[in-house]
Amino acid sequence: TMSAKPYKVLISHPEVPQSAIELLKESCELVQVTSLPPNRAEVLEKIRGVDGLFWGGHSPLNAEVLDAAGPKLKSISTMSAGIDYVDLAEVKRRKIPLGHTPTVLDPAVADIAVGLLIAAGRRFHEGRKKIDSNNWENYQLNWLLGQDVRDSVVGFFGFGGIGQAIAKRLSGFDIDHVLYTTRRRINKELEQELNAKKVEFDELLAKSDFIVIAAPLTEQTRGVFNTTAFNKMKQTAVLVNIARGAIINQNDLYNALKTNRIFSAGLDVMDPEPLPANDKLLTLDNIVVLPHIGSATNRTRSDMATIAAHNVLRGLAGERMLSPAY
Amino acid sequence: TMSAKPYKVLISHPEVPQSAIELLKESCELVQVTSLPPNRAEVLEKIRGVDGLFWGGHSPLNAEVLDAAGPKLKSISTMSAGIDYVDLAEVKRRKIPLGHTPTVLDPAVADIAVGLLIAAGRRFHEGRKKIDSNNWENYQLNWLLGQDVRDSVVGFFGFGGIGQAIAKRLSGFDIDHVLYTTRRRINKELEQELNAKKVEFDELLAKSDFIVIAAPLTEQTRGVFNTTAFNKMKQTAVLVNIARGAIINQNDLYNALKTNRIFSAGLDVMDPEPLPANDKLLTLDNIVVLPHIGSATNRTRSDMATIAAHNVLRGLAGERMLSPAY
Repeated sequence: TMSAKPYKVLISHPEVPQSAIELLKESCELVQVTSLPPNRAEVLEKIRGVDGLFWGGHSPLNAEVLDAAGPKLKSISTMSAGIDYVDLAEVKRRKIPLGHTPTVLDPAVADIAVGLLIAAGRRFHEGRKKIDSNNWENYQLNWLLGQDVRDSVVGFFGFGGIGQAIAKRLSGFDIDHVLYTTRRRINKELEQELNAKKVEFDELLAKSDFIVIAAPLTEQTRGVFNTTAFNKMKQTAVLVNIARGAIINQNDLYNALKTNRIFSAGLDVMDPEPLPANDKLLTLDNIVVLPHIGSATNRTRSDMATIAAHNVLRGLAGERMLSPAY
Repeated sequence: TMSAKPYKVLISHPEVPQSAIELLKESCELVQVTSLPPNRAEVLEKIRGVDGLFWGGHSPLNAEVLDAAGPKLKSISTMSAGIDYVDLAEVKRRKIPLGHTPTVLDPAVADIAVGLLIAAGRRFHEGRKKIDSNNWENYQLNWLLGQDVRDSVVGFFGFGGIGQAIAKRLSGFDIDHVLYTTRRRINKELEQELNAKKVEFDELLAKSDFIVIAAPLTEQTRGVFNTTAFNKMKQTAVLVNIARGAIINQNDLYNALKTNRIFSAGLDVMDPEPLPANDKLLTLDNIVVLPHIGSATNRTRSDMATIAAHNVLRGLAGERMLSPAY
């Protein structure tokens, strides 16, 4: 006979990687949502009386969910870095430990950032359009000229784990140096290793050939890339955003790109998401856009799930989570 | 009064960068083709009696051109790395020194290669199509998952200056190691620096997560990436070509991509170029294509022009060219 398992855990999404399920199964009785997209009613039904909650996906995790779970709930983890869909105040008020999964997605997001930097700097979207419309004009010596990465200054708005992973990747490209704008200076050894210097925002804008946004969305960062900022940038500058769409004033960006005030942009994030298919941004030649797939690799998803599972298990055991969210 | 300049040089394209013109003007009388695309009749008319020839663009440089120039012609340089549009046998037969401009385009082409590797591995084209068609399905945890660069094996078919520049760029991406297939082994120090090992073609195909084609087109390399080769590759493999289109059997590639026998491809070169806009390759989701813009940056074009100008000047002076083509 099987011994009774001490904890009951809800897995709120049908596509959670198997690695996490195996890990949780060892000591927990599992219930899993099977509808896709996860149906709210099914979540609220199945969550009753659970001890732990493995929250896959990005639907709102709020008082409604916590109430439905009931008083036994003592451990939650999301499977994401950002937790803007969690009512954090409500979780804190109930003193329920909450985990998330930062840092494991840094390499995958950094890869996407480098891809966007090159794709936007070297006019990938426009190049594809030329092919599709049968307009190869390469009898011109100056056709589709793009920006060189070599000898460039790469500026980071936000320079945490993701920004540093991007800078590390660019270290093989013979760039000139890195600038960054953050609240706090990073440690000196890391600055030397990455050939990086902390500067004020205006200096970042004026001196960078490529600017990568890698900061969290806060009231301080919302909309700071606006017309005022674009007017301080080089006309040859390439802007990359892999953080949150609302850090850019998207209407101002459209104007800056349309008038060639800056050279181009590469965006993995937009505001809103999904971006409407008729958004004017999509009419531009000098933009490369992706549907927020920065962390979308098998390996990253699997790592995220494993860490989230450990978070839940540790919370249930009354231990500190691997990645506590508060 | 101006002193007579000893040499007359034809510049065969109206868009040659100013840096080269200034350099040549110091000691040469210049004639320049003004039509765009360069009109053959204008070239044949203006070339009469020149001592030197600065050949911009990729139109055929053959006996017709050399005959029109006449017997004084003693120095030629192209402004390109590849010289497949030159009738080399004819130039050699007339014993006219010929220069070209390799190596200066390595960084720009290497950047494009890394951009294509990430764009194809992370499904940039498919992602854009999802946005354009309003099909964001990111409620799925497994949506648009791509290939990780970290811990991957990157294989090079051809490993000269461009291949090595690509490997150097990827050294910041935490790849596992590099494999390469060439006729000759590169030097040991470089192998260690790039963490690279020479292997036979079949081993390259079987073990690589990413394969980058960076070899010249020869009778030995023509069409070697065919169904037989694709069937030896990993199903998760990403193929990048920045060399010459005909190294790939394009019909076989279409089938391999269509049936997901390999994961995806990123191509800066095709066969033929221009690729017809109705080519079936362009119907695929898992491909990223560019209209042969590997060397298309201002800096690279300017460097190519300067070297070509020096080639011409040295040829006129009876000195060895910076980059002799034979």
